[in-house]
Order: sequence, then C-alpha cells, then structure tokens
Amino acid sequence: MVEMNNFGIIGGDKRQIYLAKSLVADGYNVYTFGFDQAEEIKGTIPASCEEIALLCHNLIFPLPVTFDGVYLNAPYAKEKMLLTDHLAGQMKGKRIFGGMISRLKATSPLWEQAECLDYSTREEFAVQNAVPTAEGALEIAMRESLGTLNGSRCLVVGYGRIGKVLSDMLAGLGAKVTVAARKPSDLSWISLHGYQCLDIHKMEGNTDFNFIFNTVPALIFYRKLLSKLSTDCLCIELASTPGGFDFDAAEKLGISVIKAASLPGKVAPKAAGEIIKNTIYNMLEE
Amino acid sequence: MVEMNNFGIIGGDKRQIYLAKSLVADGYNVYTFGFDQAEEIKGTIPASCEEIALLCHNLIFPLPVTFDGVYLNAPYAKEKMLLTDHLAGQMKGKRIFGGMISRLKATSPLWEQAECLDYSTREEFAVQNAVPTAEGALEIAMRESLGTLNGSRCLVVGYGRIGKVLSDMLAGLGAKVTVAARKPSDLSWISLHGYQCLDIHKMEGNTDFNFIFNTVPALIFYRKLLSKLSTDCLCIELASTPGGFDFDAAEKLGISVIKAASLPGKVAPKAAGEIIKNTIYNMLEE
Amino acid sequence: MVEMNNFGIIGGDKRQIYLAKSLVADGYNVYTFGFDQAEEIKGTIPASCEEIALLCHNLIFPLPVTFDGVYLNAPYAKEKMLLTDHLAGQMKGKRIFGGMISRLKATSPLWEQAECLDYSTREEFAVQNAVPTAEGALEIAMRESLGTLNGSRCLVVGYGRIGKVLSDMLAGLGAKVTVAARKPSDLSWISLHGYQCLDIHKMEGNTDFNFIFNTVPALIFYRKLLSKLSTDCLCIELASTPGGFDFDAAEKLGISVIKAASLPGKVAPKAAGEIIKNTIYNMLEE
Amino acid sequence: MVEMNNFGIIGGDKRQIYLAKSLVADGYNVYTFGFDQAEEIKGTIPASCEEIALLCHNLIFPLPVTFDGVYLNAPYAKEKMLLTDHLAGQMKGKRIFGGMISRLKATSPLWEQAECLDYSTREEFAVQNAVPTAEGALEIAMRESLGTLNGSRCLVVGYGRIGKVLSDMLAGLGAKVTVAARKPSDLSWISLHGYQCLDIHKMEGNTDFNFIFNTVPALIFYRKLLSKLSTDCLCIELASTPGGFDFDAAEKLGISVIKAASLPGKVAPKAAGEIIKNTIYNMLEE
Repeated sequence: MVEMNNFGIIGGDKRQIYLAKSLVADGYNVYTFGFDQAEEIKGTIPASCEEIALLCHNLIFPLPVTFDGVYLNAPYAKEKMLLTDHLAGQMKGKRIFGGMISRLKATSPLWEQAECLDYSTREEFAVQNAVPTAEGALEIAMRESLGTLNGSRCLVVGYGRIGKVLSDMLAGLGAKVTVAARKPSDLSWISLHGYQCLDIHKMEGNTDFNFIFNTVPALIFYRKLLSKLSTDCLCIELASTPGGFDFDAAEKLGISVIKAASLPGKVAPKAAGEIIKNTIYNMLEE
Repeated sequence: MVEMNNFGIIGGDKRQIYLAKSLVADGYNVYTFGFDQAEEIKGTIPASCEEIALLCHNLIFPLPVTFDGVYLNAPYAKEKMLLTDHLAGQMKGKRIFGGMISRLKATSPLWEQAECLDYSTREEFAVQNAVPTAEGALEIAMRESLGTLNGSRCLVVGYGRIGKVLSDMLAGLGAKVTVAARKPSDLSWISLHGYQCLDIHKMEGNTDFNFIFNTVPALIFYRKLLSKLSTDCLCIELASTPGGFDFDAAEKLGISVIKAASLPGKVAPKAAGEIIKNTIYNMLEE
Repeated sequence: MVEMNNFGIIGGDKRQIYLAKSLVADGYNVYTFGFDQAEEIKGTIPASCEEIALLCHNLIFPLPVTFDGVYLNAPYAKEKMLLTDHLAGQMKGKRIFGGMISRLKATSPLWEQAECLDYSTREEFAVQNAVPTAEGALEIAMRESLGTLNGSRCLVVGYGRIGKVLSDMLAGLGAKVTVAARKPSDLSWISLHGYQCLDIHKMEGNTDFNFIFNTVPALIFYRKLLSKLSTDCLCIELASTPGGFDFDAAEKLGISVIKAASLPGKVAPKAAGEIIKNTIYNMLEE
Repeated sequence: MVEMNNFGIIGGDKRQIYLAKSLVADGYNVYTFGFDQAEEIKGTIPASCEEIALLCHNLIFPLPVTFDGVYLNAPYAKEKMLLTDHLAGQMKGKRIFGGMISRLKATSPLWEQAECLDYSTREEFAVQNAVPTAEGALEIAMRESLGTLNGSRCLVVGYGRIGKVLSDMLAGLGAKVTVAARKPSDLSWISLHGYQCLDIHKMEGNTDFNFIFNTVPALIFYRKLLSKLSTDCLCIELASTPGGFDFDAAEKLGISVIKAASLPGKVAPKAAGEIIKNTIYNMLEE
C-alpha cells in the first residue's frame, strides 16, 4: 500500500547512498533500486521499480537522472536500465524528484502523468553545494602546494555562490584574499568584507598570486594574462567547461591548472546526499 | 566655461559637505550652493545656482532632493529655495545626480530636458550604506546596554543587505548570532555562515535573546511575541516605518525598542558622503 | 548561623550591584552593606558588617577595596566607613575576596586572621575584562568618528590581552588592522592572524591611520611620531597612566587623544560584575 | 675568504632545500653539503664541509641535526656522514644554527669552540609552525571525511599554539568548535572567541563530535571515553608520542585515529623552510 512515510530511491551514485542512509536515520522506510553492486545500505530495502511504484508516493532519481538520455544514471547497478515508456507508465501520479529532470521527461511523454520536480535547480541546493565545492578546492590547494594557505595571496575570480563561500573560507584560514568581479555592487560587497577587489576586466595589473581559484565559466585567463603569472602560482578551475583558462597556453607556460569539477559528489558524498535530502524536505513542505 | 572637472553641489546635509570635501581631495573643482550657514568647506567655491549651471556639467543634489516636494533639502542654507520651473530651465542639458530624484522631476516638466540620474536606487549605494547602518546599530547596542555584545545572544531579523552585514559584524565581536529569515536559500546561507537560523514564521519557540535587531519593514513583533521576551532584551528597529514592532505593546510590556532610522547620515556622515561619491563615479564610468 | 550558601557584599560600585544580582539569580542568599543610596537590589538583604560576619563565610569586597587606604570604596553608602581594626577583628576566620586586597591588609594586622584572596590579580579576571575594555574602545571610536571602522586603517599598539581582543574585534568589523609589538613571537602571532605587523621601535615609517588604540603603558607617541599623524586620526588611550601619548604635544599638533581608563565598570558594569562572580567561583572550586 | 653574505647549509630534508632557495632569493650566497641525491637547488653551490667552513661564518644544520646521535640527518646525501671531532674542529669560531642542537654538541666537546644556537626552541619558531601543522590537520580531516568541516562539530583538545591556530581555522571554515582545556584563563579565552569550552577533566558529558583533534601529549581518550564516541567520529592525533589516544582501545571500538606527526615538513616543506629562515634572521638581528 502506498505509504507517505515511504521513499523510493532509483539509481544514483554515492550521494544517493548517503541520502538513503540519512532518510533511514530520520525514520522513513526507504526502498532502493539500482544499488546491487554497492555495499549493503543498512536499513534500506532493495526492490524493483514496480514494487517501489506500488509502495511509495515519493520517488527520488539521481543527479543527473541520466547522462546519455537513454539509460538511468546507476553506476552501482549490475545491469543498465533503459528509461522506457513502460517505466514512465508505472510512475503515473507519483511525485518524482530528480536532478536535471528535464532529461527524464524527454525520454517519454508518459512522465507528464507524474509530478516531476527538479531539486538541482533550487537556489538553496546550489547555495549548500557551494560548501563542499569550496572545501574540495581548499583540499586540492593544500594537497598540491608546498606552502600554506595562511599568509598566501589568493585570487578568487567570480563572486557568485562559490566565490562567496570560498573567499570567506580562505580569509578564515588567514590567506590574503583578492576577489575579481564585474558588478559595482559585488565590488562593494567584496570590499566591505575586507577583501581586495579587482575589476575582472583589468586583471593584468595585479597578477602576483600564489593561488588562483576560478569560478567563472568564460575564458578569462588567456595567453597574455597567464604569461604574467608566476610559474609557482597554482590555478584551480571550479567553473564548468569551457572554464576560464586557456589550458594549452597554460601548459606551454608551465602554469599548473587543476580541473576540479563536480566536487561535492567526489569529496563529500555524505554532505552532498544530505543536501539533496534537505532540498527535498523543503519541496515537500511547500 | 563648462569644465568636465567641475562639480556643482546644490543643497544637502553633512553628507554633501563631506562629499564636497572628498571631491576636492580627488582634484576636482567644486562649486557649492546652500551651505552658507555651515562652516567653510575648505577648497570649495560658494556660488549661485546660475553660476553653477554655467560652470559645471555634473550637478549633485541631496538625498532626498526635497522632503516636501516644494523646497530644496538644504538645512545649511540661510533661505529656503523653491524648486521652480526657472531653476529647472537653468539646468537644461545638465547631468543631474540626486537621491529620490523622482521628487525633483515632479516639481517641473522642464527637468525632462536634463539627464536626471538617481544614485539612491543603485544597488552598490544600498550595499555600502549597510555598513554605517550596521555600525550605528552596534554603537547604539553598546551604548544602551550594561553588558557586552561579546558572548550575548543576538537575533537579527531579516537577511537582506543590513541583516547580512550586521550578522557578520556581531559574529566578529563574538556574539552568538541567530538570524530569522523566510527563504530556504537565505536559511542555507545563514546556516553555512555558522549562525543559528530561525524561520521567521516560527519565532515564538526561540525568544531568549539579549539583543534583537529588526530589518524587516513589516509587523513581526506583535504583542504575543513581545510578551515572550525578557524585559532585559534590547530591541533596535532598523527597518523603515512602520517597522517590525508593536511599539504600544512593547511599552506596556516594559520592552525597550529604539528606533534607529537613517543611521548613515547621522552616525557617519563622512562615510555616507564618500558612498555618494563612489556611486556617482561608477555612474560616470558607465 | 554561618551558611555556605550565603554571600556578603561589602561596598563597591555598580559592578558589585550586578554581582549581587547575579549571585541571587544563581540561588545564593546575598547580604549587602554600603548600598543604602542605591536603588533596591532585588533579592538581597541589607545588613550591617557585624550581621554579615555572623551569617556568611564568604565576603566580597570591591575593586579596589579602598582608594585612599583609609575608607571603604563604597560610593553608594550614605556614610563613609573607616577600615578599622574593629572591622578586621570581626572578619576573623572568614574568606575575604577583594580587588587589590593588599590595600585592605595594610589597614590592620588583624586581617592576617582572615583568608584574604585577590580576584583582581587572577589571569582569567584580566582576560575576561579585556572584552568590555575592547568594546568600550570600539564604542568610543564609533561615537567620536564621522566615518566607519569598516574599511578604516586601525593601529593597535601592544599585543597583550586587550590588544589581542581588540584587534580581533576590529578585524571582525572589517577594519584594516595593523598591530605594533616587540617580541618576535608576538609578531608571528599577529602575522598569522592576517594583521599587518609593525615593530614597535620602527613606527615612524608607517603612520597613515584613521584610528590608533594604545595599550602600552610607556611613552611611545612622543612629539616627533605624533607630528607624522594626520589630524583626522583619532587616538584612544587604553593604557594606565602615564600611558603612551605625549598629551601636550598632541594638543599642540591638533591630534585628538581620548583617555579611556577603567572601561569595564563604566561601559558594562553588568558584564564586569559577572566577571567578578565567575572569578570567585573559580577560586572557590580550587 | 669568510664573507658575511654567505650561508652554509649542511644536511637536512626538503625544508632545508627550500630554506636554501629562499636565502638565494634574498640575495645570499648559499653553499650546500649533503644534497647530492636531490634535484639541483638552483642558485646554490655544492661544497664540502671543509670548503663551507672556509667560506662561511653562518652555518645551518637541520632539524633535528641528527636522529641517532651518530650520523648527520641528511636524507639527500649519497653517503652517511659521521659527526666526528674532526668536523667539530673545522667549525671552530663559527656560528652554528641547528634544530635540537644539543644532540650535535653531544657528539664532540670541540663544538664548545663554536657558537651553537638552536632555532627549534625559539618561541616564534613554534608559533609559526603551528600554521602548517593546523593546515595539515585540516587537509587530513577533509581528505578522510565524507562530509564537510563546515557545519560539523569539532573538538580541539588543548589550547596551546596548535590548539589556538586550529580552532580559529575551523571556525573560519564554519565548523562548530568546542575546545577542551584546563586553566581558567584558557577557558576564558576560548569562551570569548565564541567557542564552546569544555573542562578537560569532564569530557565524558560531551562526546557528540564529528572530528576530534588532540594536541595534548597525555592519555586523555582512554577506553571509557572512546566508547562514548560515535564510530563516525574521525580522530586526528597531533601530539607527540605517546599522544592522547589509547590506540588499542580505539581499534577495538572501531574508532579511526590518524597519527599526524611532524606535519610542517611533510605537508608544507616550503613554508617550513621559510620559517627556519625567518627565525634565523631574528636570531642574527639580536
């Protein structure tokens, strides 16, 4: 029988495993599909999609639901699962939570009969994920550097969510923080937080940094700007492709650029799973 | 002759005096009208509006340009100046910077012939003014209290610009900070900054505070909520009228509520003048 | 009958009044002498010294016990009380807590028969009092300045308890903090906290500050150094007499120096009273 | 000829390599012995001990000078070098800087004829090394954990140099920090910094932590206390042997304890080398 205290988790990586554990810890019954190759997730009940549809009203798909638009994103499943009309038909009337859920809806018109909700586009989801992203960036910086972040000159490019969290954390470690941004109001925020501010269009005048963290998905560090950096400067790319660095030029100039994409799921899957849970709880309350 | 390095300052309070001084320090020629009752503003040249119009392209009016829609806001002028068609006609083709400039435009259709720009509606203006507002609030809290902010339990209501700056400053002094907000993304920000977060709709469950700073211009502290506060709790109202407190109820309950409006001009006129200058510089660059 | 849950409070200013209230709030019976001119201290019982000696084992004297070595420090007493052999004799066998208690012991040899303990020389007492001192200094800086502490250039001279607390608080408000000290290990601490550090013997090279807070009780700001400061710079003297400034020279040079002594009792008597209480509790536990 | 701008570096690990580089960058002539198996240290001149003694007045030995009291600590040397009377005799009249230099002096009475100075016992050396130690601890915590430090409950045991730096950094990352200490004045400092404080003798009442960092070299986490921790709690041992944990008990209880000794040289050899340099500069100035 459908029970409001049941959740079905269909596919996903480590984040969904920790999401499942966290739901169990909150007292929910959790049915899982697509984790037969993972270690047992204590307290959850493995089930088929059909069973899950019978037992649960709220179903949670991974982020992204699918990489290729054909198969479910389910790295811990023994067999790949096709996203078919049949599956969509089973889910009629259900409330489906997913990340990048438009990709799911594109697989069958029958998903229209379910209530499909995307947790990955929620503002608070993005805000919370800035934390494991920033910590992951710090971990990389600490690991790859022979010096310390304390006392180092750090440039954060971009003052969106990740730029904000990262610059606060760097300052909290005692780094000398400069933030490059464009909007006058962002420059005001940067300045009042006590960070040096830099107009993103005038970066050539100030390039003496030990660490550069880029969060802007647009080419900023082109050849000429890169050529002004010290080869001791460590660059960490946090923006999605194509990112801010001319990688070829950087390589020729001997500048290290480390691509650090999708950090939350990699460096802090437990935190990332709990962020999905928190976001879904908010959506359920609304 | 009109000279681009000239500025005309027409009316205003202490903020405009410091604005004038700061422009002089930056190397501009500054002509002033409406400060004959103030101390001499070193380096500026007193002039009539007519002279200013002849000499300057950029003219700066106060915030607000006028309180009553009839006279110029000019507390340091010996005589009140009517905002007339004649004045507006003199300003044809000029670039006019003002605060709440729509009030100026309402005084004459001839203002259409000037380029009227409002610095008070710019985002970076509001951001920067959050700083003297927050410091003014801290100064009041320190002055009125017999204890210290360090170690005290502080509630900040609202997480807009002032709420953000104030909660960071309180934490920087070592207070235990709780922030009340409504949006899930704000609650995420509050939480990741390490502050206790409180749903603004569920404040009755948590009322044990030494200081409450309200920034939300809507009645939140109605009688029942006020009755749960300790009479030792000091409330500071930073929101514009009507504000967040039922003042009558507070008085009857013996709760101190201090109204602290328009703090920047009062507690830090120099900073406030420089903020106007910075904002105008940004507008000139665009 | 002597009761371990009784405390006697003999003389003192507002701090002792709040100390008394705080002891009452913790459930103790509190007998007071020397507050007949103050408002009623709710929950306490006024008594004579003789009665207090009969009822209490633990007696608390003010800080300082006496200013002149002759009379009790008791600004709220109607009549001055001589510190006599008779009083000392009544206190035989009692545990006496006082501030600068050696002054009490100097009034009569009979105090040797009591256990006289000084709370004002305890390290944690001094540490805790650095907080109201630093906040008091910030309050003065905010009140006297036309600008904001945020973004201002602040110099803290000395890196003892007050220097440490004050520099952290200034940084927490977003000031640009420089600290002058002498010992290499202090300079290392200053630097790792992200503050600019300055050798106290080489201060002439760096004098561009908006605020200077001195905590070192030795002449540092002599005429030549003062002459390099801007007249806009606000100096706050936190060290005990003679302090760090040549006041005559400062006056002639038009530099404002504000003497701010004994801040805890003035700006935060409640906090100061609780600090006395906390310290006495620690002493009772040992 | 002996030249005051020459430094000789005799033995050591990566820290001494970066020390050498940093001295070169400051314009000194640097002669090195014991790095024939390392990559070329740009700008330095490999030499024998005899040559170094001829050319330099200031000689720098590693930390520790020797592990076994017999051979020089020189992991990058092809052949082990005995610490002989002959070597000591060559150094007559020289100024010798070393870490744990008493071990060097124990190898020959002839060292009495040199000026032997220990940089490793200087207070500022220890203060500065607290930074790479704390960052190394954070790097381990981030790497080993599936969650984030932000928002986690962290316990720092001990409030010496490392405890102070580490608790500030954890707070700077947004962790909820508790510090356990013993002295009332330390507890006052902890509390005024806004951290929860815990009496080190009463830790059983508060054991709900995600991370525990121990800096106290005495057994604190014995079996009974360990048994109250969650198995999800990650313990990091920063104190020198024997440290604070009963490792056997921890293993049986399934509690992870990571030993993290000598972090500066391991995680930040460049920073560690510069700290040696800064300390020697201070010693030269005195």
